[in-house]
Amino acid sequence: MNSVASEPALIGVDWGTSSLRAFLISADGDVIDGVSSSEGIMKVESQTFEAVLDRLISPWTVNADLPILASGMITSRNGWVETPYAEMPLGAGDLARALVPHEAMINSQIHFVTGASTEHAGGPDVMRGEETQIIGASSLGLNEGTFVMPGTHSKWVQVADGQILDFSTYMTGEIFAALKGHTILGTFMKDDAFNEEAFVMGVKAGLKGRSNLLHSLFHVRTLPLMGKIPKVATADYMSGLLVATEIAAATDDAEDLGAITIVGRNDLSDRYEIALKTA
Amino acid sequence: MNSVASEPALIGVDWGTSSLRAFLISADGDVIDGVSSSEGIMKVESQTFEAVLDRLISPWTVNADLPILASGMITSRNGWVETPYAEMPLGAGDLARALVPHEAMINSQIHFVTGASTEHAGGPDVMRGEETQIIGASSLGLNEGTFVMPGTHSKWVQVADGQILDFSTYMTGEIFAALKGHTILGTFMKDDAFNEEAFVMGVKAGLKGRSNLLHSLFHVRTLPLMGKIPKVATADYMSGLLVATEIAAATDDAEDLGAITIVGRNDLSDRYEIALKTA
Repeated sequence: MNSVASEPALIGVDWGTSSLRAFLISADGDVIDGVSSSEGIMKVESQTFEAVLDRLISPWTVNADLPILASGMITSRNGWVETPYAEMPLGAGDLARALVPHEAMINSQIHFVTGASTEHAGGPDVMRGEETQIIGASSLGLNEGTFVMPGTHSKWVQVADGQILDFSTYMTGEIFAALKGHTILGTFMKDDAFNEEAFVMGVKAGLKGRSNLLHSLFHVRTLPLMGKIPKVATADYMSGLLVATEIAAATDDAEDLGAITIVGRNDLSDRYEIALKTA
Repeated sequence: MNSVASEPALIGVDWGTSSLRAFLISADGDVIDGVSSSEGIMKVESQTFEAVLDRLISPWTVNADLPILASGMITSRNGWVETPYAEMPLGAGDLARALVPHEAMINSQIHFVTGASTEHAGGPDVMRGEETQIIGASSLGLNEGTFVMPGTHSKWVQVADGQILDFSTYMTGEIFAALKGHTILGTFMKDDAFNEEAFVMGVKAGLKGRSNLLHSLFHVRTLPLMGKIPKVATADYMSGLLVATEIAAATDDAEDLGAITIVGRNDLSDRYEIALKTA
């Protein structure tokens, strides 16, 4: 016989630009079931978000009125309900008080978790979804230091006492893709196995030439042209160059990063780990 | 009656990746006639360069065996005849001695002007075509200082006593196009009239945040999102940010730039002039 704590209590939805994940969660916070889809907000036609969500989670809601917590780009201007950004510092209580409830036609109430914003000398910075991941992680004890969230738009998030103090975005992933797909630098690139040696060469070049990306990116072209790195190594060299440029800038910016935690377990976080060790 | 000096003596061809210009030149060096085409080397099918050139210049060659001097990406691996790179320092005599003659079926002999290469700590740098422009300009008295050649791949060329001493490439133009066309930063961009105010804002941000392009590019997204610059101003803001990042890096790199000459007379060189004044 199940205890009440393991009964479904909540549905959590992480709905980003390019994908969507939903979890059935118990009162204890355990994940009972999960579903994912490539229907990120940019792929949902005519903003029919409710129909998409209903189809995905109806097996969970058919017999129960479960509250839904949704975060990510689904709360942006191009999403379902646009919510304001919460300001710094930001803790679990602040995030809970800023929830935006929304009556949906499906058999539940949705609470949208707002994104977060901060202001630096150079301009504003924003995130939607990462704040929920960080505050969630802080409830698991990861509540101090710098959290690096590699991705399309990498986030470096400073946390103390379970509160988000500040963060910065680096467009590393999206710029990598644009350079690979739409400039001369992509000419030799294929989706080969990870070439760690080339990646580390790129990392070292990025750490050294940190202020000079517009110039050093040209070496992604000239090094294979002059036979100094194999053509197949160019993608990993460029990846190292960009990741190290991000790391150099982020570590230059901050006074004290504290312990650095890389969020995520995949090829990309492995690359950040190698680059951080080299730095 | 024409003097001999104004008779056609030479055909000069500047054949790049995306376009082709040919000039009929007198013994005095005056341009008698000119023709241009969008048939850059990447647009010529099956490398039928000879047929393309013959069609363009046949009105000039029908009655005379004129030598042809060709420079630019036409001498690269993807061009007509690949020539080696000339090394630094490079003067008019060096370039003349390095000419690569080629017998063409058209009624002339072609001499290919080789490109130039240099080596910095970060990697090799190369150019094809710009060396010919610079050496040509130096014969007109522009033979000292730094020559800035804005474009897809901007070149900063150091010249003394009519010799090219060194140069650096910045991928500013190609990166601008890739970011505008293939990232979220292009969302609001249209081909509007030049917004100098937004451009100068971007220049100032670029000069200040010089080491942090991966981060500061995100402001091209957040500034209009937060209503801090108009959406229509985003392209010029990003242009200013990138141009200033190039200028900051180039002026940091060099010990003494001497007089700076911007090569070219168009919208882009105007932008570099504004940015250099702001810097």
